[in-house]
Amino acid sequence: MADPISPLPAGLTGDPGITREELQLATRNHGMPLEALRWPVTPTGMHYLLIHYDVPMVDPATWRLEIGGAVRRPRSLTLDELRARPSVTRPVTLECAGNGRARLSPRAVSQPWLLEAVGTSAWTGTPLWPLLDEAGVSDGAVDVVFTGLDEGVEGGVEQRYARALPVGEARRGEVLLVWGMNGADLPPQHGFPLRLLVPGWYGMTSVKWLSVISVATTPYRGYQQARAYRWRSSPDEDGEPVTRIVPRSLMAPPGIPEFLSRRRFLPPGPCELRGRAWSGTGPVVRVEVSADGGRTWSDAEVEPAAAEFAWHSWRYRWEPPGPGDYTLCCRATDAAGRRQPTEPRWNLGGYADNDVQRVEVTVTA
Amino acid sequence: MADPISPLPAGLTGDPGITREELQLATRNHGMPLEALRWPVTPTGMHYLLIHYDVPMVDPATWRLEIGGAVRRPRSLTLDELRARPSVTRPVTLECAGNGRARLSPRAVSQPWLLEAVGTSAWTGTPLWPLLDEAGVSDGAVDVVFTGLDEGVEGGVEQRYARALPVGEARRGEVLLVWGMNGADLPPQHGFPLRLLVPGWYGMTSVKWLSVISVATTPYRGYQQARAYRWRSSPDEDGEPVTRIVPRSLMAPPGIPEFLSRRRFLPPGPCELRGRAWSGTGPVVRVEVSADGGRTWSDAEVEPAAAEFAWHSWRYRWEPPGPGDYTLCCRATDAAGRRQPTEPRWNLGGYADNDVQRVEVTVTA
Repeated sequence: MADPISPLPAGLTGDPGITREELQLATRNHGMPLEALRWPVTPTGMHYLLIHYDVPMVDPATWRLEIGGAVRRPRSLTLDELRARPSVTRPVTLECAGNGRARLSPRAVSQPWLLEAVGTSAWTGTPLWPLLDEAGVSDGAVDVVFTGLDEGVEGGVEQRYARALPVGEARRGEVLLVWGMNGADLPPQHGFPLRLLVPGWYGMTSVKWLSVISVATTPYRGYQQARAYRWRSSPDEDGEPVTRIVPRSLMAPPGIPEFLSRRRFLPPGPCELRGRAWSGTGPVVRVEVSADGGRTWSDAEVEPAAAEFAWHSWRYRWEPPGPGDYTLCCRATDAAGRRQPTEPRWNLGGYADNDVQRVEVTVTA
Repeated sequence: MADPISPLPAGLTGDPGITREELQLATRNHGMPLEALRWPVTPTGMHYLLIHYDVPMVDPATWRLEIGGAVRRPRSLTLDELRARPSVTRPVTLECAGNGRARLSPRAVSQPWLLEAVGTSAWTGTPLWPLLDEAGVSDGAVDVVFTGLDEGVEGGVEQRYARALPVGEARRGEVLLVWGMNGADLPPQHGFPLRLLVPGWYGMTSVKWLSVISVATTPYRGYQQARAYRWRSSPDEDGEPVTRIVPRSLMAPPGIPEFLSRRRFLPPGPCELRGRAWSGTGPVVRVEVSADGGRTWSDAEVEPAAAEFAWHSWRYRWEPPGPGDYTLCCRATDAAGRRQPTEPRWNLGGYADNDVQRVEVTVTA
């Protein structure tokens, strides 16, 4: 774990107690209860949600998608025009870049995720690039900027939420403009009527309530690009942009929970541990399980993913040696050789955490 | 505000910082973002959720509803048999009994709601009592006990979540067995395949993942009835059961939010404040608005509710006298004469809070 700087800069706290500001966010936004890992596609309403400002209420009849900036033929499209284009439906796993933030110490005062800011939906939409190609992207294009209808103040800047993708990433075939989720229209809180979906990248990239796509010939420097979502060790660094999802595996906690502590209780005897694993930099090739808090590891059985950017299912038959308390852990390795660390990699914003999950269980007598 | 007892008994904290236990619950469960008050029926996924244990994964093909106890003809019903019965669809507002708990000081260490544990869905189901009538309820029946499939440990007691209704309440025509929400099957997190719906009562009564209905000839003394959900000032009291929803009004916060503080920013000029109000003890007959933190109040315009147990819409045209900071409040009065207090009515479990909402806004120059 990198040493956090001292004294603490603004926006960090070393207090274990969650502040009122963090609680206000935690009661609005929500994670996926970890038992939902049992569903290959997360039921609507259990997928994680992170909403910076307010959920906009959009009238689809008057809504338009504007495509402009450095293009030869700017366009304005209705929802019906978009839905008439070739469509695909694909399961894609999304994870919030701040997942795990509240487990760091000191931590950024922001949405206090523990581990649950993830979900997999069956998304329906149309590929982005053919639309931009029809609009005629200028030769000098560098970034494609996506702006939503959600509006607020952040870091002292009044803004509509906006993020950019480098042209090379925006051109990838898997990048979609999405109007459907799990066989229905996008719900308001997931971006109705249209959102961007950038498989493999953390969720901040998949702009909701999409309103304007603008091609830029200089690098985009908006708040969410140049100040937020950057990996920094100290506030005076420019930092590295947070981009693709690093590997993570999570276990559906076995047995039954205690309401408040969430400690798990299991009967004696063999127990099948099950969970999911994903990575934005390649398929997951290995999941290991530990029943002794990470001292020793055994291989779980990993299934192929249903699609390139969907999570993998894994299972492991655990035979507890007897009654008592155990700390169960799991860790994933992807095809690029990235493996989850056992200690968090501290950074100022609490981004891209992926140290191993620890599940406290009691095997009863 | 009643004086909390001192020293603090177990389960209470006076620390403003939210504990890890509370955060674990807050990242799983979620409130309705208050801007969702703009929708008369809360979009699925924005309705509040409070789940004591894990969301069960239920196979509807093998699931049965068992009706037994003090009845002459015990029954076991399939989902298809229930859905073939006469059905009704009604908008009903549900609120968690712990809504507002985290605003009390000291507070119970439990789900740390601020104000957002509410929602209105269009529920589809069949009236309960005709089913019990067909089963032949014994003359000595006192309580009807509803048991879900969700299992855990709470207060040291291993249990399936269960609550009872007095026979007189269970017989009311508005009490439904529900399989549909907003035109679709119940989502898993709202009780698939079947839940109880008790309009007018706090949400703990509307048992999810309903599995067994048992008629009892003695008062039910299960954990969720006799220990939880009781209004107490000290731990040695038996307390009064928490039952019907007390009046509350909430405002959709106007303007745009600052991400972290959630303070609102508005342009100068007139502003229509809008919100909802509800009560379990009668229709809301009055909503008042204050723009000076509760010193002076003016009447808002209140619309009739869409149905007996659905919330009312209200609106109020506010003309800010000029730029500056304002504290907006609203309070409801119901037909039974109950009005929201300006200070919380403290109790040990943090139940049935309904003191007025305070929304901090800045009118810009």
